[in-house]
Amino acid sequence: MAFEVTKEFLEQIRQAVEEGNSSFIESAIIDLHPADIAEIIDELDAQEAKYVFSLLDDEQGADVLMELEDDVRERFLKILSSKEIAEQLEQLDSDDAADILGELSEDIQEEVISQIEDDEVASEIVDLLNYDEDSAGGLMQKEFIRAQMNWSVMRCIAELRRQAEEVEKVYTIYVVDEKNELIGLLSLKRLLFASPKSLIEDLYSNKKIISVKAHDTKEFVAQQMSKYNLESIPVVDRQNKLIGRITIDDIIDVIQEEAEKDYQMASGISGNVEARSSVFRLTRARLPWLVIALFGGLLGAQVIKTFEPQIALHAMLAIYITLIPAMAGNVGVQSSALIVQGLANNTLRTTDLKTRLTKEVSVALLNGAICAALIFTFNYIFYQDIRLGVTVSVALMTVILFASFFGTVIPLILDHYNIDPALATGPFITTLNDVVGLFVYFAVSLLLY
Amino acid sequence: MAFEVTKEFLEQIRQAVEEGNSSFIESAIIDLHPADIAEIIDELDAQEAKYVFSLLDDEQGADVLMELEDDVRERFLKILSSKEIAEQLEQLDSDDAADILGELSEDIQEEVISQIEDDEVASEIVDLLNYDEDSAGGLMQKEFIRAQMNWSVMRCIAELRRQAEEVEKVYTIYVVDEKNELIGLLSLKRLLFASPKSLIEDLYSNKKIISVKAHDTKEFVAQQMSKYNLESIPVVDRQNKLIGRITIDDIIDVIQEEAEKDYQMASGISGNVEARSSVFRLTRARLPWLVIALFGGLLGAQVIKTFEPQIALHAMLAIYITLIPAMAGNVGVQSSALIVQGLANNTLRTTDLKTRLTKEVSVALLNGAICAALIFTFNYIFYQDIRLGVTVSVALMTVILFASFFGTVIPLILDHYNIDPALATGPFITTLNDVVGLFVYFAVSLLLY
Repeated sequence: MAFEVTKEFLEQIRQAVEEGNSSFIESAIIDLHPADIAEIIDELDAQEAKYVFSLLDDEQGADVLMELEDDVRERFLKILSSKEIAEQLEQLDSDDAADILGELSEDIQEEVISQIEDDEVASEIVDLLNYDEDSAGGLMQKEFIRAQMNWSVMRCIAELRRQAEEVEKVYTIYVVDEKNELIGLLSLKRLLFASPKSLIEDLYSNKKIISVKAHDTKEFVAQQMSKYNLESIPVVDRQNKLIGRITIDDIIDVIQEEAEKDYQMASGISGNVEARSSVFRLTRARLPWLVIALFGGLLGAQVIKTFEPQIALHAMLAIYITLIPAMAGNVGVQSSALIVQGLANNTLRTTDLKTRLTKEVSVALLNGAICAALIFTFNYIFYQDIRLGVTVSVALMTVILFASFFGTVIPLILDHYNIDPALATGPFITTLNDVVGLFVYFAVSLLLY
Repeated sequence: MAFEVTKEFLEQIRQAVEEGNSSFIESAIIDLHPADIAEIIDELDAQEAKYVFSLLDDEQGADVLMELEDDVRERFLKILSSKEIAEQLEQLDSDDAADILGELSEDIQEEVISQIEDDEVASEIVDLLNYDEDSAGGLMQKEFIRAQMNWSVMRCIAELRRQAEEVEKVYTIYVVDEKNELIGLLSLKRLLFASPKSLIEDLYSNKKIISVKAHDTKEFVAQQMSKYNLESIPVVDRQNKLIGRITIDDIIDVIQEEAEKDYQMASGISGNVEARSSVFRLTRARLPWLVIALFGGLLGAQVIKTFEPQIALHAMLAIYITLIPAMAGNVGVQSSALIVQGLANNTLRTTDLKTRLTKEVSVALLNGAICAALIFTFNYIFYQDIRLGVTVSVALMTVILFASFFGTVIPLILDHYNIDPALATGPFITTLNDVVGLFVYFAVSLLLY
């Protein structure tokens, strides 16, 4: 059964904290997964959280710390001493420890590092801090299982037993040569069923070794792992020397963030915020796009102002001033969303520009024709004004074609120049299409009136 | 190095197909991963594809088949006989075989099943077909490793060797009792390092066993695996009997689809399409939202029509008719996107309605005040019309508040009634806010003029 934090359960925990009833809390959470305990602590205030945290054993505590929401952990780390933080970090995988350390200010980072007792652990963590957090190096961990080609299975198992102590999850054993260059892979399953005397070099596979370089982007790592269905991937440096591995749980977060980021951009939200972020951060993430849209709106106002004499002559023209740009905006968002997603999940190649445009134009012609026919009919039913009907349907057809064109081409161009194509979505493309839509509408009306 | 399908490479393959130069093709693709071979075949026409496919050995062929794009596979399966399809399916994991079978028409399904030689394999696949494809049962595979509690390590390794033949990736061994109820987990690592005589019951862990039921939704499975960092999860039936497992590679697709689906909904695209889908499917996915938006636009036109006398009196009012609803639309999309994402990735609880609204209103007040001040200033600079400036800034402030409110509350209400909250995003919320925005603008102008 799935665990869920209920209001009642939280109330019981809070009361137990107040009464100092540690045995109740311990028995309530002892069998829970660290991710569940973190969910409880996410809901408590700092002092309550500290009390519950103090009841966890070292390893559990570190895992819970890792699972907390970013902002909760930030607050929580502030009430721990450098020594306490160092003790937690020593329990964690190097990548998680480096992530947490990276969240602290530089002064505190140094203090915490100096408090880590095991020098090797400290230097591994410090080493990881050097990598860009958006690169493979920033995601990798130093814990992995390594075997030499000339080992026997027996020796290998003995060595692995030693190495495996610090490696929480073993997926694949990386086979290296004497220069620590990655030359092959060996599954634990293969090793388990091999005769003790056989040699690693007769067991391992050196075909199709998928690895990434430390400076590859995390998006590239995600693509590779998802394409080749890997649960872990070795990371090598520029000389093909094995320096770490990335596990699938870290990549799932990347995939999710990536997809969410594109959606946020399309919705006019910049920066990595979520509903629970602070009012200030939310405002800062949303305001820039609103200001862009506002300027777009002012541009639109100028277009309307320019055609004011036309409106003054034919007041009925005013009634479709919002419909046309709104439809243009909608079509543009549709087109760009498909392109941005196709680029993000790699199902689209930039070279297909011609094919893409032909297809987009066909879809636009179909949708445009249907919508134009609908609006002509409705306009006739409501207002019996054929000239207005022709104006609005011709304008609608035209802006749908324009909007499809912009929505397709702009993200592809941005991508070509290595600018995030998601920038082209949302308020930006809506606003562009608003202005173009207004212009087309009045231009058509000038021809027909 | 990452493999990439270049134009030159494709040209070489095509030429080799034409010349019947099988040895060239074989040497070019022999070391490639099935996912890469599939990428090549995706680009070929049906006859070329069949030729390349015929050069692959059975297991490779099946894996490649699985990795093809859906539409390419559909076309490709049509030129294979039932017997050929059956041979491929026998090479695949049961879940993949069931997925492919599920793509065929019912007649052909029966033919293919009757051609599968191994009765056990056939019945496993047929069994999986019974589950809803959006449930855990629809994702699970029948291949997993099972151990009895009373086995010794030695016996266990011997049994596993037998079972492991058909299990491609071993992550965790599932420990069951005599009734096949799941009672614990054992890692391969633990087994590898255990003394041959120790008993499974002394090694396995029975704490915090995370499993899912066959009828759980795939979204729930994805949440559990991602929350608990699992690379595989056991699936049990209503009596807690172990019936399958789900591996992380299948869940990555679910997570990606889910995130993409929300983004598509927000962009006014219904149904699971991508840029490479056919013109007809793309049109069908996009038209409904455009028609909704069109009706919204007509509603807006009616609002403008109602206030036509007001415009006739004060023509300058017309210039902001597009800006106000556009801003309302943008704000609404921002608010709803954060809520929809929060609901999708489970960082938001519906119970926080009050907190959410307070926060949204604060953000709206801040953004609204800044935007209102900006538009007042610009209006003054451009048109020196203070009454118009007051009208447009009061209206802007008001619609931003309204739009934030709708954008927050509507998805939460939909979610409360188990309707996909993503429905509330995109053209729907934009259109609602357009109409409200127009209404507010004219209402304010009536008060001030």
